Amino acid sequence: MKSADINCDMGESFGAYTIGNDQKVIQSITSANIACGYHAGDPATMAKTVRLCIDNGVKIGAHPALPDLIGFGRRTMQITPNEAYQLIIYQTGALSGFVKAAGSSLSHVKPHGALYNMAATDRLIAEAIAQAVCDFDSRLTLFALSGSALAKAGKKAGLAVAHEVFADRTYQEDGSLTPRSEANALITDDNKAIDQVMQMVKSQTVTTVSGENIPIIADTICVHGDSPQASEFAQKIHRQLQKEGFLL
Amino acid sequence: MKSADINCDMGESFGAYTIGNDQKVIQSITSANIACGYHAGDPATMAKTVRLCIDNGVKIGAHPALPDLIGFGRRTMQITPNEAYQLIIYQTGALSGFVKAAGSSLSHVKPHGALYNMAATDRLIAEAIAQAVCDFDSRLTLFALSGSALAKAGKKAGLAVAHEVFADRTYQEDGSLTPRSEANALITDDNKAIDQVMQMVKSQTVTTVSGENIPIIADTICVHGDSPQASEFAQKIHRQLQKEGFLL
Amino acid sequence: MKSADINCDMGESFGAYTIGNDQKVIQSITSANIACGYHAGDPATMAKTVRLCIDNGVKIGAHPALPDLIGFGRRTMQITPNEAYQLIIYQTGALSGFVKAAGSSLSHVKPHGALYNMAATDRLIAEAIAQAVCDFDSRLTLFALSGSALAKAGKKAGLAVAHEVFADRTYQEDGSLTPRSEANALITDDNKAIDQVMQMVKSQTVTTVSGENIPIIADTICVHGDSPQASEFAQKIHRQLQKEGFLL
Amino acid sequence: MKSADINCDMGESFGAYTIGNDQKVIQSITSANIACGYHAGDPATMAKTVRLCIDNGVKIGAHPALPDLIGFGRRTMQITPNEAYQLIIYQTGALSGFVKAAGSSLSHVKPHGALYNMAATDRLIAEAIAQAVCDFDSRLTLFALSGSALAKAGKKAGLAVAHEVFADRTYQEDGSLTPRSEANALITDDNKAIDQVMQMVKSQTVTTVSGENIPIIADTICVHGDSPQASEFAQKIHRQLQKEGFLL
Repeated sequence: MKSADINCDMGESFGAYTIGNDQKVIQSITSANIACGYHAGDPATMAKTVRLCIDNGVKIGAHPALPDLIGFGRRTMQITPNEAYQLIIYQTGALSGFVKAAGSSLSHVKPHGALYNMAATDRLIAEAIAQAVCDFDSRLTLFALSGSALAKAGKKAGLAVAHEVFADRTYQEDGSLTPRSEANALITDDNKAIDQVMQMVKSQTVTTVSGENIPIIADTICVHGDSPQASEFAQKIHRQLQKEGFLL
Repeated sequence: MKSADINCDMGESFGAYTIGNDQKVIQSITSANIACGYHAGDPATMAKTVRLCIDNGVKIGAHPALPDLIGFGRRTMQITPNEAYQLIIYQTGALSGFVKAAGSSLSHVKPHGALYNMAATDRLIAEAIAQAVCDFDSRLTLFALSGSALAKAGKKAGLAVAHEVFADRTYQEDGSLTPRSEANALITDDNKAIDQVMQMVKSQTVTTVSGENIPIIADTICVHGDSPQASEFAQKIHRQLQKEGFLL
Repeated sequence: MKSADINCDMGESFGAYTIGNDQKVIQSITSANIACGYHAGDPATMAKTVRLCIDNGVKIGAHPALPDLIGFGRRTMQITPNEAYQLIIYQTGALSGFVKAAGSSLSHVKPHGALYNMAATDRLIAEAIAQAVCDFDSRLTLFALSGSALAKAGKKAGLAVAHEVFADRTYQEDGSLTPRSEANALITDDNKAIDQVMQMVKSQTVTTVSGENIPIIADTICVHGDSPQASEFAQKIHRQLQKEGFLL
Repeated sequence: MKSADINCDMGESFGAYTIGNDQKVIQSITSANIACGYHAGDPATMAKTVRLCIDNGVKIGAHPALPDLIGFGRRTMQITPNEAYQLIIYQTGALSGFVKAAGSSLSHVKPHGALYNMAATDRLIAEAIAQAVCDFDSRLTLFALSGSALAKAGKKAGLAVAHEVFADRTYQEDGSLTPRSEANALITDDNKAIDQVMQMVKSQTVTTVSGENIPIIADTICVHGDSPQASEFAQKIHRQLQKEGFLL
């Protein structure tokens, strides 16, 4: 029996501010990427989100980011590989503190936002991140955009790598995501998104915006948790995967 | 042969800013309390300071603080015990990330500044901090003002506690430090400070500002690292302790 | 014809985070207190909220706070009067930048949260805040808890002072607000809250929790903007005041 | 009699941290660019530095930056023109608060670090910054790298522009500064640096690294304040300019 993994960014609330509907989305996912205080999240939210994952049997990952709270970690910053390394260690360490205190263990690391995108194409940043994860705990799984520089760097560093695919994003012929600036970047029809997920996990291919089928490694499916209908969509994917015999 | 411990706050630089003379002071101390980014310190400084400790065989401790970079963690904030707990977990976790990545292990936790002072007298804050250290890693030593609520809370939580004394601060009859607002709060004569240290570690007593001898537990001696003559003073204490047969 | 003023905290969103329903509440108030980036708000939100006030003919005030984003400025911090002075100048200056750039002018200053509460009872903090407002622009109105140390300090400094009352909070015999920790702190029945407002603005008295009528100066009425029914409640007060002949 | 202007970044201390030797450097400069809290500086430092400028008759400028305290504002961030506009308004407003409170007036704005460099070549960022300065106060002078996109945008917006040149940096044939990554980027010999300054202010030309003379507008000379010999160097330039008949 084949297994599948559904991941979602979690714990993105901050102080008096709330983002996401973690209590509901958690019920349909298998891996959570928890914000570590640099783009979102704070100590109280991290503690609460770790507890939520444990109570729901969801795997816990660190979701480290660039130091940019105002920009939610989405603005590219010119950092050195060393700085990338240290950002990963600091934030993964901080989250692992809550995981340890709760008697559980960390499962994976997934860089957030601009750092994720930078690591997808910049080999030196990718290698620094992979090395940081490896130095912190070589048993952790590195979540990386399928086929990216980060996925390659993780493999090279000897880490388990989960190639990540997106349910609601379209793909270009070179395997990269269609930039959000383009009209056809998003799949807004839930059924089409689920069809794309099923194709990816079953045949390890994806149909690009130009209609071609290209190979893609689909180890984990990213769903977004910040829209009102997010939890419903996650549930649909979860059910469809179960229906088609995947172990979640 | 009796042993002694000299500790100093370290890694208090931040970005382009430098505080302290860590490279020199490290040579005379046995335990370092490393800033974790909330009152001072940043990921690069933490990585560098952990490395410095390892290279000099100095025990590594986390030095968590209130979230107050402008105030250097010295301004009392009205936080809940829960918030105190989470501050300790976040920052100790972050520092332990660098320690793990460098292949070493964390030795102790010492709250910084206003948090240290609050924990000295506020039982609920003290117990929350002790519990956090215990939940994170029950083998860690908790550094606390000798005789304080934090020392008691640490013992109660089952932690090893290092009762801390100060070389250059005077003591009042109730065993508390003379507030810095008073004229005789500081011992500015190095020889007198060293005499006080020797009395404390040898007879576990201290002579108060009113001339009385009172009992005091002196497990670890705090020296300050941010004055120009700090490293020289640390060296003097180190030598005197060795001369009098203490193992450092 | 007597006039009345309804004020509300505004612009408390931050980056990707939203608090409040400013677009709706703005329609029923006459003065807005805009967050300045220390407890909430960011440059983009400040620009947008200033524009919203101008478009709706609502008076613009600065809402400076303690530097505590995680705690939303609600946690008391031990700051000096000098620090209070500088916090007011920095944040009022920053907000006035957006007001100037939009071709409008600043109308008032109201300290936020813990700083508001500290200034209500701590004379030195109150005087420092009043002096800061005065030094920045002596034509500004200072919003202060009715009868507080801040109201007195404002008068003493020669500022116009708007004594603030709360629609949905109960009062104690000494004129102070019943602490939120007590069961009867809040008036949850809208009609009772409106009755209290009408009594305050018409007779300048309030009926305390023990049933006594005491004098109270009611220059401006604070309504809260962060509950779902906030805008509706603001609208009710607005209408009732108009109905009873007040100019808004 | 021709006039000259020497400017220096000031007020870059933060909380417990000190950078620069403002007390000494201030004596030899005519314009100060004061940090506004985003890359350096805090309310107390801003208040103190404004006072220092007033006491020494030095013109006061705002020195707004990217929100990057750890990186001292030196790391490029991908921000939108709108975000650039708002960063300028917020920080210039904040500094002008202290200037107003001290009874003085703001003279100029100079973007800091990465924001300065981005504005030198990115037309949209440059125009947003110029517009912000213009909207805040159209009588302010905009300091910009001589010949840069920012200088052009300032002129276009109707602002007075001070074309800035560097005493200790070499120039390339296209008029741009030699990147710091190259060996010959810095002029380390004080006399050569002063010769370059004199040539620039007297003949409005500079000799490039390849030996050619190219035209350059030299309205204001930037000296750095953070090296131990900074104040001495500033003094030398000041004296030489006076000696050659420039009004400072």
